[in-house]
Amino acid sequence: MLYGPRDVRSEERPDPTIVEPTDAIIRLSATCVCGSDLWPYRGVDPVTQPVPMGHEYCGIVEEVGSAVRNIKPGQFVVGSFFASDNTCAICTAGYQSSCLHRQPGAPTGAQAAYARIPLADGTLVATPDLPPADLIPSLLAASDVLGTGWFAAVAAEAGPGKTVAVVGDGAVGLLGILAAKQLGAERIIAMSRHADRQALAREFGATDIITERGDEGVARVKDMTGGLGVHSVIEAVGTPESMMQAIRATRPGGHVGFVGVLHDVEIPGREYFFSHVHLHGGPAPVRRFLPALLDLIWNRKINPGKVFDLTLPLDQVAEGYRAMDERRAIKALLLP
Amino acid sequence: MLYGPRDVRSEERPDPTIVEPTDAIIRLSATCVCGSDLWPYRGVDPVTQPVPMGHEYCGIVEEVGSAVRNIKPGQFVVGSFFASDNTCAICTAGYQSSCLHRQPGAPTGAQAAYARIPLADGTLVATPDLPPADLIPSLLAASDVLGTGWFAAVAAEAGPGKTVAVVGDGAVGLLGILAAKQLGAERIIAMSRHADRQALAREFGATDIITERGDEGVARVKDMTGGLGVHSVIEAVGTPESMMQAIRATRPGGHVGFVGVLHDVEIPGREYFFSHVHLHGGPAPVRRFLPALLDLIWNRKINPGKVFDLTLPLDQVAEGYRAMDERRAIKALLLP
Repeated sequence: MLYGPRDVRSEERPDPTIVEPTDAIIRLSATCVCGSDLWPYRGVDPVTQPVPMGHEYCGIVEEVGSAVRNIKPGQFVVGSFFASDNTCAICTAGYQSSCLHRQPGAPTGAQAAYARIPLADGTLVATPDLPPADLIPSLLAASDVLGTGWFAAVAAEAGPGKTVAVVGDGAVGLLGILAAKQLGAERIIAMSRHADRQALAREFGATDIITERGDEGVARVKDMTGGLGVHSVIEAVGTPESMMQAIRATRPGGHVGFVGVLHDVEIPGREYFFSHVHLHGGPAPVRRFLPALLDLIWNRKINPGKVFDLTLPLDQVAEGYRAMDERRAIKALLLP
Repeated sequence: MLYGPRDVRSEERPDPTIVEPTDAIIRLSATCVCGSDLWPYRGVDPVTQPVPMGHEYCGIVEEVGSAVRNIKPGQFVVGSFFASDNTCAICTAGYQSSCLHRQPGAPTGAQAAYARIPLADGTLVATPDLPPADLIPSLLAASDVLGTGWFAAVAAEAGPGKTVAVVGDGAVGLLGILAAKQLGAERIIAMSRHADRQALAREFGATDIITERGDEGVARVKDMTGGLGVHSVIEAVGTPESMMQAIRATRPGGHVGFVGVLHDVEIPGREYFFSHVHLHGGPAPVRRFLPALLDLIWNRKINPGKVFDLTLPLDQVAEGYRAMDERRAIKALLLP
């Protein structure tokens, strides 16, 4: 529970129960702290009353409502942070996080032992069997940061022959690198100043690392691309500086895929008009990618769970927030 | 020449001559007044000294510089408002209006009898033969408003199965309708309040006309699309109101193609983030589309010249501006 800026507490709460007949209750195998949880933790997003935190989850189905058809008790499932019916016109177009019946921030309070998942049939994807323990971190990563980095790479049109730059070296940016590599990008420039993150960036597929940011970062990217800028930028921060860095580092006709929740950003129309840059992004429709991502993880083609460099028991959640806030950890995994 | 707000004068000026070996001089068969010329005419864009106006042109090549290889004297040619080499990495990717060697606003002063066209080989496209007189207005339209409307429709991903809304009923918006129709759009909603423009919108392919604008226009578009919004919006105005109307009328995952030069527009990041709308636009790379557009015109598949509802001798240019400013004319064609 977040009580206010930098005040996260582990406390006993009643276990969730089925409310709607389309709900499922799952027992979490693991959960974690998201970079976006740091916005309210740092007081950037105001907190007016104690809030249950957490929206990343995977685990075993305990119980399903009477209208749930496909998800069964005993299955291991992964879902995303937006509950979606996966049948409406917006879902079938691949934008489940804008589902006509979406339930934003569902589940709330996934930093817990149990969670209620609305629209279970639409939201959850089951693995072929119960997973071995070493796959749990990667399956948890698919719930948000991998799916979000993947969407950013797709929105940036990363692919064969493309040079891709990645703004932001948090878990989403790092997994954007992994996604760009999987999508076939030729060259991937990570913008990072932290040695541990640089190492993981290289492991995930970055071909170049640059430490400059802002206008200097843009100038460096242009230097590396014959003055043109890159074809694709993954923007995984969400500040005015990072967004303009992304637009300015992209060549005319190129694509920015942005997934950092935009905070106090106003995109200046005139500069953007003359940039000729495609913009696309928003809250990632992780559900679109989950079946393919679970398959890649199950078959050990990718190992996104490496972004978790700190594992704590759930009751030490406050230390997980502190470590991420102070950049001592990339991402903290919590075991209920 | 524009001397200041609402002060356009026809005057004798020296004929242009070859300056660079890549130049061509053309004798204009027709020229015209652009909607974008009204920004400085109305004083929105400041004018500090007398400016030669006009950037839309077609005509017969009089003379070429020593380095021009493909364009020959005697040919009838059409070019766009950005001179481009058509060989650099940005041009070959289809963004000639961001050419590494582009010369913006070239030619300046195309509301004249003769014009100097830089980078003639890259900029100009010749017709198969001298055109009959009745094709001249359509060929002139290809130089800017048709190419710009076409780019907007392509950027908005108008095509088969798509519902497209068009914000702006000037020449560009009207030709965006024509482009969306040619690209195979299923349903085209024109947003227009003027009877003459509504009639032309229908002739160009609009299936629906709505007169509401702003939030009411958005609500009407949503009503007409089962609450979803359209797949594609062509934004051909460039104000904060028109841009937000475009974004808000688009369904999640849909596309806005914007070509109205953005004036005092700041796109609010948070609302845009959650919209899931693709944005693409800017100064249209008309050169990308010119060969295909000239072919459609030459074979009388399209008749974009209908946007010219006023024809004047060049020395009455001031009346052309007045008529467009007062919305008595959609677009004024000028005969040197």
